[in-house]
Amino acid sequence: MREQFRQQMQELTDTLILQAQAASKAMNGAAASLKNANLALAERVIDADHSIDMLERSIDDMGISLLARQAPVAGDLRTVVSALRLSATLERMGDLARHVAYVARGRFPNTVVQGDVQGLFEQMADKAAEVGKLVAALVETADLTIADQIIRGDDVLDELHAKTFDIALDDSRDLSRQEVVDIILLGRYLERFGDHGVSVAHRMRFLVTGMEADAE
Amino acid sequence: MREQFRQQMQELTDTLILQAQAASKAMNGAAASLKNANLALAERVIDADHSIDMLERSIDDMGISLLARQAPVAGDLRTVVSALRLSATLERMGDLARHVAYVARGRFPNTVVQGDVQGLFEQMADKAAEVGKLVAALVETADLTIADQIIRGDDVLDELHAKTFDIALDDSRDLSRQEVVDIILLGRYLERFGDHGVSVAHRMRFLVTGMEADAE
Repeated sequence: MREQFRQQMQELTDTLILQAQAASKAMNGAAASLKNANLALAERVIDADHSIDMLERSIDDMGISLLARQAPVAGDLRTVVSALRLSATLERMGDLARHVAYVARGRFPNTVVQGDVQGLFEQMADKAAEVGKLVAALVETADLTIADQIIRGDDVLDELHAKTFDIALDDSRDLSRQEVVDIILLGRYLERFGDHGVSVAHRMRFLVTGMEADAE
Repeated sequence: MREQFRQQMQELTDTLILQAQAASKAMNGAAASLKNANLALAERVIDADHSIDMLERSIDDMGISLLARQAPVAGDLRTVVSALRLSATLERMGDLARHVAYVARGRFPNTVVQGDVQGLFEQMADKAAEVGKLVAALVETADLTIADQIIRGDDVLDELHAKTFDIALDDSRDLSRQEVVDIILLGRYLERFGDHGVSVAHRMRFLVTGMEADAE
């Protein structure tokens, strides 16, 4: 019984790590598809999202089953509760990567925007991909110094997001309606991805320390 | 011990109902502030969001404490797990209502948009407020016929959301950049509010039947 319990806990943790890696890979691909108008890559990100959703389902089933049959306590209980909450956040991060890939696919063979606006979105996409990698590393290692790096990465994303509004609202810029719409939505998706990364950081801090931080 | 347990379970359920009612009230107020450029109402929605966040925290604390000390099983376990997941969704619904109120406040004393565009957003806002009311009623009564009504309401929101893109992208319309940005963001906030309502519907179905539906 005890050994089975430890094995199930390990499986839960391993599946959560897989999901975090999948969400990270999704934003990495979405960022690259956005930077290079890479259609095949955008398609792959879109197709892969279903597996991130399935991982959420697996984690939830495993977590609920563990609670029902094993009544874990202390750190194990925190691991299960954290997994149930993290799986939903990681699923959402996958969705946001997919949304970014949709926009990139929709404007192929062109990039979504051009010139300095493209430069700004390249920065934002790189930063979001970096947050994704940090999220995967944090879930894997539970090293809370990474949580702080995620929060700093999100601050940068927020600053870049503010610039997207300056651009969209600047009448002196010759932008099509489609470009304005894309700038606002891409900015929102990438900024939200960072917010969810911060949520992962807070929940991992709860997992490790048992203390809740203020969410979002 | 048993009596204390039932009392804590009741408190958890009552707090979740309070949070659902608060999220519903927030969208109701946000919708009205959007329709009538009502600054005082927008301010109230923005100020009230903090209490929805605090209710999430209370629910999470209660739920984790119940799991740790009482190891609930069967329907009680589902209630606790559902509460932990619903509290995060309801918190997010409150955030989205606050975002709508921010836009309404930002354009005061004017409405955010005018003419038929304003008419479209009034429809969307009413539908989102209706979804909010249904969510509160569902959490309160666990009557799954309400879950179906939420899903239908979300379908209407999706249709209206598609129309917001038609308007924003229509070059023959004389819209300022600010209006284009507002149309896209308001549309997104209201559509996401509906998505979260559907997520509540699925999670309440799990609570009542023990079966997971496909989320989002």
